Amino acid sequence: MTPDIRAQLQALGNDLTPEMLGGTQALMASMSRGMAAATKVTRDIAYGPDARHRLDIFTRDGLSGAPVFVFVHGGGFVMGDKHTEGSPFYSNMGDFAARHGFVGVTITYRLAPANRFPSGPDDLALVMNWLRANIATHGGDPARIVLSGQSAGATHVAGYLAHRRDHASGTAGAVLMSGIYDTRTAAPNPFAEAYYGPDPRGWGVASTLAGLLASEVPIQFSVAEFDPDDFHQQAAQVVSQWQAAKGRFPEMHFLTGHNHLSPALSIGSDIREVERMVAGFVRRVTG
Amino acid sequence: MTPDIRAQLQALGNDLTPEMLGGTQALMASMSRGMAAATKVTRDIAYGPDARHRLDIFTRDGLSGAPVFVFVHGGGFVMGDKHTEGSPFYSNMGDFAARHGFVGVTITYRLAPANRFPSGPDDLALVMNWLRANIATHGGDPARIVLSGQSAGATHVAGYLAHRRDHASGTAGAVLMSGIYDTRTAAPNPFAEAYYGPDPRGWGVASTLAGLLASEVPIQFSVAEFDPDDFHQQAAQVVSQWQAAKGRFPEMHFLTGHNHLSPALSIGSDIREVERMVAGFVRRVTG
Repeated sequence: MTPDIRAQLQALGNDLTPEMLGGTQALMASMSRGMAAATKVTRDIAYGPDARHRLDIFTRDGLSGAPVFVFVHGGGFVMGDKHTEGSPFYSNMGDFAARHGFVGVTITYRLAPANRFPSGPDDLALVMNWLRANIATHGGDPARIVLSGQSAGATHVAGYLAHRRDHASGTAGAVLMSGIYDTRTAAPNPFAEAYYGPDPRGWGVASTLAGLLASEVPIQFSVAEFDPDDFHQQAAQVVSQWQAAKGRFPEMHFLTGHNHLSPALSIGSDIREVERMVAGFVRRVTG
Repeated sequence: MTPDIRAQLQALGNDLTPEMLGGTQALMASMSRGMAAATKVTRDIAYGPDARHRLDIFTRDGLSGAPVFVFVHGGGFVMGDKHTEGSPFYSNMGDFAARHGFVGVTITYRLAPANRFPSGPDDLALVMNWLRANIATHGGDPARIVLSGQSAGATHVAGYLAHRRDHASGTAGAVLMSGIYDTRTAAPNPFAEAYYGPDPRGWGVASTLAGLLASEVPIQFSVAEFDPDDFHQQAAQVVSQWQAAKGRFPEMHFLTGHNHLSPALSIGSDIREVERMVAGFVRRVTG
């Protein structure tokens, strides 16, 4: 990342204000290279009965038995989409996968407050069911699926690994960017209340940290330099409890110069470090 | 890093065995590009009265008022050198600095068991005295000095920041790779006993963690995937106590595919991520 881009992201602040969210989207969209011509997209395949049970698939001609890279968007449990007309996000994540020789999948899922925990893990189980049954016909290897998510998307992927552990067994890997993992120590806020319920005393059951520590699925975590404090606290807690339980530092990457949104948005731009980090992990756990 | 190099490093194991140390040096030396023709070296300048009080300076024609990058080698407090005839290490660190437009400095320091704590912090104070008085004549800016170190070298730099805090004030930044910071929780071993003394109950005074937390000097930490357990424990402890004290995750980089030695040895090879990380930090804190 250039010092100029870093300064622009830093100037937007760490807090998830409308100015920070909109400013980051606009800045990163201005740098996106857009989708590669060779990438083929099939949109809005239903993986379940809800209108939000939809996925997009990104492939290239000739792909067969390729690793599968799934991206789960963020949005505070209550909003967000896999694709917005006129925006490069998050088709950039599917295109990234196709450019690296993987099959890319971006998904939407049911939203809070209409849907509460464990709707996220349940929807990911539906996604995995669909992929295991169908992704081979799109060039993907159902035995080599990597799940990735950002913010609420990371929390949902973590929830699937932790609370649907048997179902998740055999997932090749997980990329968790700026998520909340331990609901017992997470700072209450209206977004978490919408998904976990109004009383934080009831959130403990949704915590994913013990389940992540027990999971056999390889995990690449990351936290951004300009993430809000709560995400830094969560990342530090993951490091501390992981080392205490396993005697080793987890794969927790500190993303210098990035804020809460920019890591995923940087993929497909000239800011290459997150793309290298994620592609390297996918190759490592599916190689 | 390519999967092949990663596999070779992983096969050497995490422990600091002669096979791992020698194998890593040989592998990384085979990939070194060697010193750039434009880099000019002045060797063995005395910065103090001891025979080990020596430094090498790496510059390029035309450098003036440039940031200064100092590298302090590791070697378990009892061995190691800034330069070994026929080896690219650690002139690669000085050349790195010069290639990026900085003045590079590599140093040797007094060794244990003849010299014990606080000989490391004391020697770094002598280095800083010399640099503040003399580095301008070599093209460097005495107000923009970044100290870096690996293993025992990182511990010595940390000791200088923590135990010579007033003297260290104004240091532009510190790059600490795979160091031991809290002697109260470090696993006793013959190398630490040689430097801190035979009885670990007396080591607490040498701990740098409280002093690092109190220091105003920006710090870039890193830990390697294949570091021994004790270095993972130390890194996790830095993360945990830093977050508890400051509310923020420290700049702690997890170096995928690297072992205890390879990060510094990779600088000047085609394995670029550590070079990018360190150069980015130096530019950031001296910009």
